Amino acid sequence: MGSPAVAHARPDIARPLRRVLVANRGEIAVRVVRACRALGIESVVATSTADRDGLAARLADRAICIGPPPAGQSYLAVPSVLSAALGTGCDAVHPGYGFLSENPEFARACVEQGLVFVGPRPEAVAQAGDKARARELARSAGIPTLAGSPVLDDVESAVAAAGELGYPVLLKAAAGGGGRGMSVVEDEAELRARFPVATEEARSAFGDGRVYLERFVRRARHVEVQVLGDKHGNVVHVGERDCSLQRRHQKVVEEAPAPDLPEDVRQDIRRDGVRFAEALGLDSAGTVEFLYDADRQDYAFLEFNARIQVEHPVSEMISGLDLVAAQLRVAGGEPLGIGQDDVTLSGHAIEVRITTEDPARGFLPSPGTVTAWEPPSGPGIRVDSHCETGHVVTPYYDSLLAKIVAHGPDRATAIDRMVGALDELRVEGVLTTRAFCRTAVDHPDFRAGRVSTDWITRRGLPDYLENQR
Amino acid sequence: MGSPAVAHARPDIARPLRRVLVANRGEIAVRVVRACRALGIESVVATSTADRDGLAARLADRAICIGPPPAGQSYLAVPSVLSAALGTGCDAVHPGYGFLSENPEFARACVEQGLVFVGPRPEAVAQAGDKARARELARSAGIPTLAGSPVLDDVESAVAAAGELGYPVLLKAAAGGGGRGMSVVEDEAELRARFPVATEEARSAFGDGRVYLERFVRRARHVEVQVLGDKHGNVVHVGERDCSLQRRHQKVVEEAPAPDLPEDVRQDIRRDGVRFAEALGLDSAGTVEFLYDADRQDYAFLEFNARIQVEHPVSEMISGLDLVAAQLRVAGGEPLGIGQDDVTLSGHAIEVRITTEDPARGFLPSPGTVTAWEPPSGPGIRVDSHCETGHVVTPYYDSLLAKIVAHGPDRATAIDRMVGALDELRVEGVLTTRAFCRTAVDHPDFRAGRVSTDWITRRGLPDYLENQR
Repeated sequence: MGSPAVAHARPDIARPLRRVLVANRGEIAVRVVRACRALGIESVVATSTADRDGLAARLADRAICIGPPPAGQSYLAVPSVLSAALGTGCDAVHPGYGFLSENPEFARACVEQGLVFVGPRPEAVAQAGDKARARELARSAGIPTLAGSPVLDDVESAVAAAGELGYPVLLKAAAGGGGRGMSVVEDEAELRARFPVATEEARSAFGDGRVYLERFVRRARHVEVQVLGDKHGNVVHVGERDCSLQRRHQKVVEEAPAPDLPEDVRQDIRRDGVRFAEALGLDSAGTVEFLYDADRQDYAFLEFNARIQVEHPVSEMISGLDLVAAQLRVAGGEPLGIGQDDVTLSGHAIEVRITTEDPARGFLPSPGTVTAWEPPSGPGIRVDSHCETGHVVTPYYDSLLAKIVAHGPDRATAIDRMVGALDELRVEGVLTTRAFCRTAVDHPDFRAGRVSTDWITRRGLPDYLENQR
Repeated sequence: MGSPAVAHARPDIARPLRRVLVANRGEIAVRVVRACRALGIESVVATSTADRDGLAARLADRAICIGPPPAGQSYLAVPSVLSAALGTGCDAVHPGYGFLSENPEFARACVEQGLVFVGPRPEAVAQAGDKARARELARSAGIPTLAGSPVLDDVESAVAAAGELGYPVLLKAAAGGGGRGMSVVEDEAELRARFPVATEEARSAFGDGRVYLERFVRRARHVEVQVLGDKHGNVVHVGERDCSLQRRHQKVVEEAPAPDLPEDVRQDIRRDGVRFAEALGLDSAGTVEFLYDADRQDYAFLEFNARIQVEHPVSEMISGLDLVAAQLRVAGGEPLGIGQDDVTLSGHAIEVRITTEDPARGFLPSPGTVTAWEPPSGPGIRVDSHCETGHVVTPYYDSLLAKIVAHGPDRATAIDRMVGALDELRVEGVLTTRAFCRTAVDHPDFRAGRVSTDWITRRGLPDYLENQR
């Protein structure tokens, strides 16, 4: 038997993509259309009736309506998406993030219909999507993992496992991800109360009720490694990102490279990112997420995301690579064409997510019509968005309106540029997190590079609300 | 006497700028406002009545009206500009490009009023602005110059000089620049006819009727070196740009680094750029322009521009530097803070100028109201513009609407991204050069890096018009 990379190689699939169905919406649909255009590939955007007049539909070569909102009747409706791809003569499907992007059945269905799934092999999607299996794979590849339990069958085994780990513990859905399906449990009483609820929630949210426990690190930082593989056994990393500024496990600000990381830890974490991708036989883009304990200066594998991430632009800004174009190229069988030495990282990049939510009212969604939209520009500024003047924010989907990305030769310059860009951004007609994000990135704690995943709740939001008074 | 750099050092002026008058309009006014913002400097934009509601005015901390169009009554009216600066409590004036940016009297008047002129010392502006004196300085610094005559007093001395140089010759106004005030003369009869006209034209356009001759290189490329100096004697270069795609001596497409340049020529030309800046005692941003003869693989000094150039973003994209912020910092007395080794250039960047002109009708200006404005975005794309939906293009000023800049790890990727961006750009209500620029950058000649300054007239425009039929 050869190396894992060789074992997974599929030289049979080496057919450059000609026409791609973009099975997503919002800014990522626009992003995929742009990548197609840069490669001379035609794009067909699958839209719900609510998104029919959106920017992605207009920028694409063609748009096809796949049903009404909510997502279950369109973006998550596998038969509708497959019909749209086949009916428009597409040879591939790009799932974006969210929706069907990490659904192994969908990936398999694409392959069965003769469509290229722009993402990892279905088996890799399945393995990565099962948090417990992914953690096993990391462990077997010699990558540190967080002390945790196997999948728990009942509340008594959960109580026993928590006793060994020590409270607080994190109760996680095996099929969860992206910050969904996890809760901190402080003691046994809470665990007994929470266990059946979490099982039931996981079943209804992910169709899979299995849960497990992990040691909970209070002052944790979220550090993740962008990896990229092809069907010929090549894998490279594109550096790491720090996404510690989170609210309810949802990332708000991301940056690359990670600040305040000892150089040996940085090298180790990148190496382990590549190791995981190799163990998985990764043949697309993916992200290996780690939890970094700043006090102990060690890290542990959290999970693997078998898709493009929201925050991929910060890695693009420091590397000059187009990660979505790379996904499309390797999906068509092309070799990566670069080795690790060809990936040169320079400067620092920061992204903030502008959502249509009101920070002053518990981040209450703020749907409505955008009556004025003036994105910032200038040196080092990139805006990924589907917004335009007249854009209607509906209540059906997540509230991400735009990603503002700032690159600079160093972190301080990137922050200055971000602050300038957020001052320049003008959105009217809906409430947004613009001012909240500005407070966060201009905060002395963030400028010092010393924030943990609980910082927004503990410090950022209270400071912002105080300033608003 | 010390070195030229030390002799010019002005350590007395070391007062960080607090509030800057932006004495310009259009995209460069927006650009300067952004640079001020990134440095925490307040900006006041001086606008004509025609530009009062423009983007620059809105983005700035304040706007002040300095008179009606045309420019003579506002942007070129020195007393109005100075009053605006003093009346709003500014401590500095940024002149942008064009208008008063290379007017040494204006630079001197600023200094006399206690205002920092964001540009080189007035004497350096004066020396650079006189083409004959600038060429003398280059020659004395050991930089190759184009065979040419001194300033010519009458037509007989012109005929004698042309006889020595050999026809065709270039008849140039000593006070011209930016492609204005020059014409190709093919033989003696044409010279005798053209000489009095050129003298008169130079007098009315620049207030200075002096002219001189230069050898004319038919298949020439325009290569220029971006230089940056401070008041402490430091000078660095930020690589070179190729701006060979021109129409009537006006640049249309610019890129950095210059393609298809032998490595020894590239190093020599950069070194000579720094040499010129040092000889001038440059204490701001500037550009040393060279004519590169691709057949002979040699180059000659053309002129020095003592200001920020339209095409500065391509150098920013490959260096990560903010050149306008650097201008503001060194104007406030701050040292550059970087040496030549700190300037690292990576990848390739291309800029196209989108103007409101109709290529099919001899580039006839197309004023009107922009009814739809959708700039491109995505990896490596930057748009510098003052445009927005509803923007009114008046007939009073130059027709530059937007600069689209594309950066990539290599030239081919930068071109692909530019083509994608030009496909994405949507401007309605006025005619633009979008499609013309797309034809040019996607042309096999341009992709091969083999265009000269006459390429648009000889090949690019005919090919475009042919395709339009």
